[in-house]
Amino acid sequence: MNRMFAFGLVFLVGLACADEPGLRVDGDRLNATMARMMAFGGLPGGGSARVAYSDANRDALAYLAGLMSDAGLATTIDVAGNLVGRRDGIAPGLAPLMAGSHIDTVPDGGHYDGVVGVMGAIEVARTLHDAGIALRHPLEIVVWTNEEGGKNGSRALNGSVRPAEFDLPSLGDRRIGEGIRFLGGDPDRIDEARREPGAIAAYVELHVEQGAILDRDGIAIGVVEGIVGIRRWNVTIDGFANHAGTTPMDQRQDALVAAARFVTTVRNIITDEPGRQVGTIGRLQVSPGAPNVIPGSVSLSLEIRDLDMSKIERLFERIRESGRALADETGTSFSVEQFYESPAALTDDRLTDLIEDAAAGLGLSSRRMPSGAGHDAQSLAPLGPIGMIFVPSADGISHAPGEYTSPEAITDGANVLLATLLGLDRGPK
Amino acid sequence: MNRMFAFGLVFLVGLACADEPGLRVDGDRLNATMARMMAFGGLPGGGSARVAYSDANRDALAYLAGLMSDAGLATTIDVAGNLVGRRDGIAPGLAPLMAGSHIDTVPDGGHYDGVVGVMGAIEVARTLHDAGIALRHPLEIVVWTNEEGGKNGSRALNGSVRPAEFDLPSLGDRRIGEGIRFLGGDPDRIDEARREPGAIAAYVELHVEQGAILDRDGIAIGVVEGIVGIRRWNVTIDGFANHAGTTPMDQRQDALVAAARFVTTVRNIITDEPGRQVGTIGRLQVSPGAPNVIPGSVSLSLEIRDLDMSKIERLFERIRESGRALADETGTSFSVEQFYESPAALTDDRLTDLIEDAAAGLGLSSRRMPSGAGHDAQSLAPLGPIGMIFVPSADGISHAPGEYTSPEAITDGANVLLATLLGLDRGPK
Repeated sequence: MNRMFAFGLVFLVGLACADEPGLRVDGDRLNATMARMMAFGGLPGGGSARVAYSDANRDALAYLAGLMSDAGLATTIDVAGNLVGRRDGIAPGLAPLMAGSHIDTVPDGGHYDGVVGVMGAIEVARTLHDAGIALRHPLEIVVWTNEEGGKNGSRALNGSVRPAEFDLPSLGDRRIGEGIRFLGGDPDRIDEARREPGAIAAYVELHVEQGAILDRDGIAIGVVEGIVGIRRWNVTIDGFANHAGTTPMDQRQDALVAAARFVTTVRNIITDEPGRQVGTIGRLQVSPGAPNVIPGSVSLSLEIRDLDMSKIERLFERIRESGRALADETGTSFSVEQFYESPAALTDDRLTDLIEDAAAGLGLSSRRMPSGAGHDAQSLAPLGPIGMIFVPSADGISHAPGEYTSPEAITDGANVLLATLLGLDRGPK
Repeated sequence: MNRMFAFGLVFLVGLACADEPGLRVDGDRLNATMARMMAFGGLPGGGSARVAYSDANRDALAYLAGLMSDAGLATTIDVAGNLVGRRDGIAPGLAPLMAGSHIDTVPDGGHYDGVVGVMGAIEVARTLHDAGIALRHPLEIVVWTNEEGGKNGSRALNGSVRPAEFDLPSLGDRRIGEGIRFLGGDPDRIDEARREPGAIAAYVELHVEQGAILDRDGIAIGVVEGIVGIRRWNVTIDGFANHAGTTPMDQRQDALVAAARFVTTVRNIITDEPGRQVGTIGRLQVSPGAPNVIPGSVSLSLEIRDLDMSKIERLFERIRESGRALADETGTSFSVEQFYESPAALTDDRLTDLIEDAAAGLGLSSRRMPSGAGHDAQSLAPLGPIGMIFVPSADGISHAPGEYTSPEAITDGANVLLATLLGLDRGPK
């Protein structure tokens, strides 16, 4: 077709989309598919053990491929083991709009983390399909593999998966490379999954909050401003192990007494300044660890998260200085070494506005907030604008069988996703 | 013999003993036996693994039985597995003077803990024997079995060994009952080892300090005022495990943050009041213990030692109150349960005076001090007056291969033991 005809077609379809303010997902159908998913890896006592590369993971993907076909999507398993459902757009040469999430769980996980985003995106595609609505952009609905155990599914698109990862154990019985093959991918051809910056028009992910802010404050939709950066360090405090009976209090170099002051100091430094930064000491091991021996050494993890990596660095420097000073005061030595870093991924301003407007258009309350947890969306950030829609997690429980998000909240989230994708497809006013 | 004759004999011998102010142990011989002992269970890299009921333990006892015979002692292995070397006294009807210690070590222990007291006591007996000096009292030199793993050897004398202990593992490969048989004892007849209050005239134990006080201050002899009482508790602090990224700082119930304040509080309470009490948190376990999960629960051990049991109780009550208050402030719950108690055993005033005088008579500096560690002596406290003589531990190192006490200090300690036993045999002036 010639360019003028194509332009006219796009213009008309664009108008058609804008003329669908009343379009809604089928909440009953969506929540029925949510319920059906619970059978794949569901645990007798509740919750789910649908870890990546398990039989339950594979069986669930087969079920989802069927749903995608019903929604008019052509499905493939890519070389990274991701399930991709795609339909073409009617405007030529546009990069795809992408939506998705994951269905793999932690070993003793829940039914909502990831799953809500996948079922919501498939329902959006089904709604468009059933209503006969074409989009200018191609649409890709993706079920990323192994979000919980390394995000290697989504990271394959930005080219950051190292071959050594394929030899690592997954959260289940298979090594990652073996698991990718099990799902139908091919780790030897992982580079073929890579996409260049600009290769996606946008990526939007619907997800449960995994925190208690929306639930506590009765807010329907979280508009994610970014996925926090994470840095983790190993901290070692060395004192001197000695007899707990024969060593007077003033002659001790008790590594745990020093570590205790460090834990308190970290909390004080993190909470001293305003903001939504969080700092956690989640692991702490005492050596030798006997009731009658003064602790000689303590090893602990320090984690700081914030949207602003320079703030993380500034807080860390204060903590390191305090750690050294504490060590001097307690006759111990202090050392710290970073073992993990995940950069912050900011969401796109236009996308956050679109999500906020979509919520408002549906009569839903919303609040801007950071995502404290990592998500596949951060893997897509190098390729194009990303956005995330949060729905409330009851009591903030996540990664546990008690995870719960109400059917109404899931439907609300899917409608916001639908409206956001339509808005993206329309393009800037 | 008639009573008058016996009295006269005792009187003469008593005078004879009092006339031996120049009597000294043979330091070279004593330290040669110390060196010989290092071969039994000695580790290639230094230190000793002569755990109770090991082959090395049995072989060392055979060597010691020979030394005892050379010292004019008749040896037996009692039903509890203790090696006892005895010679009669010349006064009828007197309870024995007893001296001894242990030769079993912790798995990666040193060459001095216990051994100094055993070799010192045997050398004292040898010195008396070689000098042809009779004592009014019978003399018993005892090598107690399994001091490090339960003190069941010495405790057999006060009747506190429960049959269930024989089924417990020892620090080596044999269960305790099996080990007692291996050494020549008979756990089925353990009651035969029991002695009644008053059954010993006195028990004196020479031992390394296992702390750094004498070494640091250049004091030759520690005059032990008592063996501290020990109480140990399990403390549990329960918070709420949650996602370290999605849970704001002000919504956390972090069990480790609470536990850290508890550790600091315990140290402050213990050091707040004057005295030689010690308090230790040696074990602390965090659950679930992952860098990205807020600690939901902390389990830790609390130990307090002091000569005064009522002081331990008072300190514990302050700690318990503070723990409860801390829990309230941090949104956690606090529970505490005692799992071990060993009552304090005070030494006899006359014996501490005798030891102090003996040191002074030998031109040795001395200091009164509590024993922060447990010893076989405390098992004998219910049967008669006890006393303990400490010699310096280099840098206070104990229960480790680096344990060291100089040959001169060992000789000094044995001479104080000799003079103390002679003083006890003479009786009050």
